[in-house]
Amino acid sequence: MTPFAFQLLARDGAARRGRLFTAHGTVETPAFMPVGTQGTVKAMFPEDVAQTGAEVVLGNVYHLMLRPTAERVARLGGLHVFMRWPKTILTDSGGFQVMSLAALRSLTEEGVAFRSHLDGSRHMLTPERSVEIQGLLGSDIQMQFDECVRLPASREEIERGMRLSLRWAERSRRRFEELGGPAKGQALHGIVQGGDDIRLRIESAAELARMPFEGYSIGGLAVGEPQAVMLAVLDETLPVLPQEKQRYLMGVGTPHDIVESVARGIDMFDCVMPTRAGRHGLAYTRFGKINLKNAKHADDPAPLDPESDCPAARDYSRAYLHHLIKTGEALGAMLLTWNNISYYQRLMRDIRAAIDAGTFEALRAEMDALWAKAA
Amino acid sequence: MTPFAFQLLARDGAARRGRLFTAHGTVETPAFMPVGTQGTVKAMFPEDVAQTGAEVVLGNVYHLMLRPTAERVARLGGLHVFMRWPKTILTDSGGFQVMSLAALRSLTEEGVAFRSHLDGSRHMLTPERSVEIQGLLGSDIQMQFDECVRLPASREEIERGMRLSLRWAERSRRRFEELGGPAKGQALHGIVQGGDDIRLRIESAAELARMPFEGYSIGGLAVGEPQAVMLAVLDETLPVLPQEKQRYLMGVGTPHDIVESVARGIDMFDCVMPTRAGRHGLAYTRFGKINLKNAKHADDPAPLDPESDCPAARDYSRAYLHHLIKTGEALGAMLLTWNNISYYQRLMRDIRAAIDAGTFEALRAEMDALWAKAA
Repeated sequence: MTPFAFQLLARDGAARRGRLFTAHGTVETPAFMPVGTQGTVKAMFPEDVAQTGAEVVLGNVYHLMLRPTAERVARLGGLHVFMRWPKTILTDSGGFQVMSLAALRSLTEEGVAFRSHLDGSRHMLTPERSVEIQGLLGSDIQMQFDECVRLPASREEIERGMRLSLRWAERSRRRFEELGGPAKGQALHGIVQGGDDIRLRIESAAELARMPFEGYSIGGLAVGEPQAVMLAVLDETLPVLPQEKQRYLMGVGTPHDIVESVARGIDMFDCVMPTRAGRHGLAYTRFGKINLKNAKHADDPAPLDPESDCPAARDYSRAYLHHLIKTGEALGAMLLTWNNISYYQRLMRDIRAAIDAGTFEALRAEMDALWAKAA
Repeated sequence: MTPFAFQLLARDGAARRGRLFTAHGTVETPAFMPVGTQGTVKAMFPEDVAQTGAEVVLGNVYHLMLRPTAERVARLGGLHVFMRWPKTILTDSGGFQVMSLAALRSLTEEGVAFRSHLDGSRHMLTPERSVEIQGLLGSDIQMQFDECVRLPASREEIERGMRLSLRWAERSRRRFEELGGPAKGQALHGIVQGGDDIRLRIESAAELARMPFEGYSIGGLAVGEPQAVMLAVLDETLPVLPQEKQRYLMGVGTPHDIVESVARGIDMFDCVMPTRAGRHGLAYTRFGKINLKNAKHADDPAPLDPESDCPAARDYSRAYLHHLIKTGEALGAMLLTWNNISYYQRLMRDIRAAIDAGTFEALRAEMDALWAKAA
């Protein structure tokens, strides 16, 4: 079994170029991870996801523990086998989604008791159980169980959630080691919380940095706050985290968010935006965002991007995509999702190449001109 | 331009093995044509449709004339270019669907005036307009405009519709020739009507046989009548049609329907069943029909058919397919549609090989044992 490792290959300002080593392959960073909530990147064949250049996909503990259940996935050989994704898998801890999706949830020191939003059945998520589930799934990069306090919230409320998350971090870590995660080449991330309060963020990062996590996540951002708030938190928090370990900004974001976060030292991203936007008729391209619902595309024989290596971008006319979206045909969502994941992977390749070449600031200026208004 | 042609290669009893030549390729018959109503075989990439062995897909005049309109498709290079299907395309005439889908329709000798079910806009379909639309789409195999009387109906009503369809056959043919269809290598089918009345069916077939159609369709069947009625109509009608021209049984059907119709001399089929069933969790396989919604598949690591050459059938576990269907994930419909179209194409290859080898009756007995109960 390959031990988990992260190697820093190059820097350009605060931007970092790195490589993750997991039991299921290597991951070039900065990396964008398509979201496969229920064991599938929505409307894509796994081979096509891999062909876009994606090297990690994300699975969600909350959804998978309810259906098909972690025990069933384990019996079937683990999530890699189940969803036919042989490369690296990262899982969240369920902490965020249990608070936003579950019914009748009750949070205590022990964890979160809740009822399934599907059938009302009773469940309990604790730091220990979350890590057990992630182990049953066979996740390569796991997350501590945390509480993500919804903003706006009082300083007291944010602080309470942050301190609870720190205690849960210790419990998550202990269980992860009991289950032999490190020996399996798996990683566990601590998650920085603290809302929009810089001092709490710094305290959270400093406390987590003292624990032996393989990597760190920044949680509780991109939940509706202005981009400037998110970037200010990164500016203050990232210097506190160990430089030699990977940093993952959870749930982010737009192309502009990604470039600005890379500029501050983030290595990993995930977001439902490219897949969700694809299902709603929006295409991300080198030329900006294109709304295929717009009637102006109805007679346009041009593809989204004739120079793309993605068939969805290169081979299908905008007129046809417009028609598929207007008629609600599944192929429209299939093609635009594919195009969008492909665009995001191309963006990450461009970012990595720019850091390697020491030209990241030029790329940043270019992306700022293209995407700032869409952030 | 290749002139349209049909070549009879072999017979085994009344079953026929043939080959169509169109401007967009050859089609081995008996053939099954996946339905691409709105310019897409639902939930499939066109490359995957072709890879299953399909050599023709069907487009629907009624849907396409409303969205994106035939004129727009023509401006964009025709339906082959628009939907990225370079092989043969067959279109219906709109006659069946205008009567089942349109709002406020009024049928006269001239044609059918109606309002769109989408936006209430007014339209008119006549034999001439239907053939014009099919020409604008660039269809290789076109259908005369006909009236399909809904059963049960009185003999008078069936006869009225049948005679109207004969007059519309003449008008469709005249317009098809004015538009230069034959010179473009296109075919126009006459459509046999007459409901479940054998004498009317025979009269319809005999009258159409006197007109210079490139091929013939049997319409107005598989609309809810018992299979025995459909097969009895075929038994009596097919001998009246010219033997050297292809016969297409419209909207049929189950695997059992197909084998029994081939046994009577049908060369071409289309049906929404494999695509629609796929979206509803049903898989057609060599072992019969499998309902993936059924909980018994939840822990089954076996694929639908380990010996299939279709990735959807061969590479994904039944447990995963069950999960995708239960969670409503798009990938479930994508995989099962692919599997089903692939199964239907395999069935047609088996049928063609059996006729070539003179072993069709053995295949028929085998299929009867497998599929009769599902007919």
